[in-house]
Amino acid sequence: MSLAVQDVETLVDELRELLGDRVSTSPSMRDTHGHDEAWMETMPPDAVCFPRSTEEVSAIVKICARHGAPVIPYGTGTSLEGHIQAKHGGVSIDMAEMNQVLEVNAEDMDCRVQPGITRKQLNEYLRDTGLFFPIDPGADASIGGMAATRASGTNAVRYGTMRENVLSLEVVLADGRIIRTARRSRKSAAGYDLTRLFVGSEGTLGVITEITVRLHGIPEQISAAVVPFKTLDGAVDTVIMTIQCGIPVARIELCDDVQMDVINKYSGFDYPVEPTLFLEFHGTEAGVAEQVELFSEIAGEYGGGEFQWASTPEARTTLWQARHDVAYAVKALVPGGRILATDVCVPISRLTECIMETTADIAQTSLTAPIVGHVGDGNFHLAVPFEPDDTEAVRELEWLCERLANRALAMEGTCTGEHGIGLGKIKYMRSEHGDAVDVMRSVKQAIDPENLMNPGKMLPAD
Amino acid sequence: MSLAVQDVETLVDELRELLGDRVSTSPSMRDTHGHDEAWMETMPPDAVCFPRSTEEVSAIVKICARHGAPVIPYGTGTSLEGHIQAKHGGVSIDMAEMNQVLEVNAEDMDCRVQPGITRKQLNEYLRDTGLFFPIDPGADASIGGMAATRASGTNAVRYGTMRENVLSLEVVLADGRIIRTARRSRKSAAGYDLTRLFVGSEGTLGVITEITVRLHGIPEQISAAVVPFKTLDGAVDTVIMTIQCGIPVARIELCDDVQMDVINKYSGFDYPVEPTLFLEFHGTEAGVAEQVELFSEIAGEYGGGEFQWASTPEARTTLWQARHDVAYAVKALVPGGRILATDVCVPISRLTECIMETTADIAQTSLTAPIVGHVGDGNFHLAVPFEPDDTEAVRELEWLCERLANRALAMEGTCTGEHGIGLGKIKYMRSEHGDAVDVMRSVKQAIDPENLMNPGKMLPAD
Repeated sequence: MSLAVQDVETLVDELRELLGDRVSTSPSMRDTHGHDEAWMETMPPDAVCFPRSTEEVSAIVKICARHGAPVIPYGTGTSLEGHIQAKHGGVSIDMAEMNQVLEVNAEDMDCRVQPGITRKQLNEYLRDTGLFFPIDPGADASIGGMAATRASGTNAVRYGTMRENVLSLEVVLADGRIIRTARRSRKSAAGYDLTRLFVGSEGTLGVITEITVRLHGIPEQISAAVVPFKTLDGAVDTVIMTIQCGIPVARIELCDDVQMDVINKYSGFDYPVEPTLFLEFHGTEAGVAEQVELFSEIAGEYGGGEFQWASTPEARTTLWQARHDVAYAVKALVPGGRILATDVCVPISRLTECIMETTADIAQTSLTAPIVGHVGDGNFHLAVPFEPDDTEAVRELEWLCERLANRALAMEGTCTGEHGIGLGKIKYMRSEHGDAVDVMRSVKQAIDPENLMNPGKMLPAD
Repeated sequence: MSLAVQDVETLVDELRELLGDRVSTSPSMRDTHGHDEAWMETMPPDAVCFPRSTEEVSAIVKICARHGAPVIPYGTGTSLEGHIQAKHGGVSIDMAEMNQVLEVNAEDMDCRVQPGITRKQLNEYLRDTGLFFPIDPGADASIGGMAATRASGTNAVRYGTMRENVLSLEVVLADGRIIRTARRSRKSAAGYDLTRLFVGSEGTLGVITEITVRLHGIPEQISAAVVPFKTLDGAVDTVIMTIQCGIPVARIELCDDVQMDVINKYSGFDYPVEPTLFLEFHGTEAGVAEQVELFSEIAGEYGGGEFQWASTPEARTTLWQARHDVAYAVKALVPGGRILATDVCVPISRLTECIMETTADIAQTSLTAPIVGHVGDGNFHLAVPFEPDDTEAVRELEWLCERLANRALAMEGTCTGEHGIGLGKIKYMRSEHGDAVDVMRSVKQAIDPENLMNPGKMLPAD
């Protein structure tokens, strides 16, 4: 399916005519754009483009369509399931130069941005408005990439995922047409929900060129805390009870004892090496005090230990940095090695069971596989360092991941709560969705009949 | 496009073989199923079926597909834009006998129901669980119909619309295939969001046969109040400021002075005949007290008058009954007349302007056109009683509605926040969505290639 060398040359010539030196075919540039943070092999695109406007994206896509060349939108390359690998070659469209805030409607609590802006850049820009964009997947991902992968992360338990926080998208379709998926009002009953169709479509239906997102008021009071538990199920049960009591926690994150040991060693903390919850409460002063009181009662019942509080912004940053550095901390365990990050999500009533069975599986392997999770949503991760040459470790890893995905599916959950399908989880699509996969395929075929948009991703070929 | 008489006879024979006397072709039954609560003419289906299972729905759809007969799902007939009119004849599938609760997962705060159950029946069923289903469009609509039309209503400002509260659907497609759109976990990044594609699709993509919805904990404290304002813009600005301050009001509803007069006369109240906000606060005791204090400060600044509180369940029921009876109260103004209910939704910063300009338009007509609205979302309604034979009134009505829809569109809003498109608003689809209409049409064509599912609705033919 990939293009012949000669076709690539003509394609690149035409792109150069459009973009000048904002087209690159250098091996290092192609390699950088040929992999995300997944463990998979690099699959470089034939060329990398850096457009500066929607019109340029449309022109690029039209050129690609004429040559039958695949189009792969690129944000920051921080996805985790091989989303941006150029499986069939083609053109990577890097959004780095489309990173502007186009409009902030403070009164409506929304803003319109280009896809290349990262979440930290956006929040920096919003600093003086009293508003913030809450979704925080850990990595400083681009807003376009986050929309494309339906990202969520630590704040989703309170503020929702990209599904709930994208109001509207501008999208370039496979034939170069430019559409807007919705108006800027908070709700609408006018027509199919194209916004939600494109959110999470992983670049397979079109290139997102603008995103209108909801913003939220910066809470009057923010308090964060770390609480160790004697047992893993005590910690998880505390989360379940907190959610069921309707306490509006902003973040409620689990690290197991293995992970806490890794964090202490990597970041120089001396947290107890026990299953631990990282928490954040948002609200008015009185509201946060009440949430904390209710939560403390619950934690006490399930064996929670002493709270370490972080109320200053600096202390909170340190605390969440430790949580966010989990991936790097794990990576550091195997110098020069790789890391496999995988996630599942289950109904919260099955969470304890799912985590306990997974822990038992891990114990049967030689792997270090710390568990971290956005457990308030029923979502948790394994981050497993390994040496690609260690065939026994790779075999164990595959066994572990397959057991995990199938366990989540058997518990009415999903094979991925937030990382997405990419290349890595295509094999679970049929077990998860059954005949609905065929409906997805019909939709793909209708919107991208030539299969040019990020081909080979998400949908199984069977 | 409609079926010939002979074809109808064969079709009905086959349906009778499947369902026995649960197929009706009586004129009165067909008439009842040939209109919703819109002002439009009745367009009766050729037959009405009452299936009892998903398998029966699938069998009905297969029979219809074989005969090229349109299929129109029917809930309670309370939609407002001609959603269930049998424009091209065919078979109405009435879900009245599929009205069971199939599963309540109290720990996960969700439940799975059949489409025919109404929201009041569901809440009655849930009474002892401490949980409730919040979406309240006014009418005691079926959950299936609410999913199909992306319903929202008074609680949406706090709890979201059907978009946010449907976790998963079971759908029978045009060829009889049965699919499930998602698993039961709170979030997923696995594949296209088919749930959101079918929510709001108005029966044009398939027949919804099961719905898994989110439930919410019944709040510890609920307080409702009615507050009059000296001016309409004072009331609207109070709403805008309340939302911007992040006060988590559960309901914040506006009735203008015209509407309050109508309510007093219909329901025997003696509220001041002034622009009025109906409010409800949910939370802990302390939380509600804090919300009320913050809100009262804001209302005071914008000319809010004396609060009338309703804290007992009975008093609250009376208060909200008055708000919900708005449609009937308006209807009673013209005995034997019709009522036109229309809605738009705009970004909240444009709400005052949009309502004031609409009020000025109304003053130019001879119509009584009270304004009510879910103003916390930027969504408001006109409910206009009229005599269909009064051609001058009909002309004024058309002028008013067209100006309203175009005004909302010009303000980056939508031609309908919650009533949907049906037949009544197809003419605005192109102005609202531009080329995105063609994408919607491609999706429809891909999923329902023979155009059997509720044909003639939502998508313009151009």
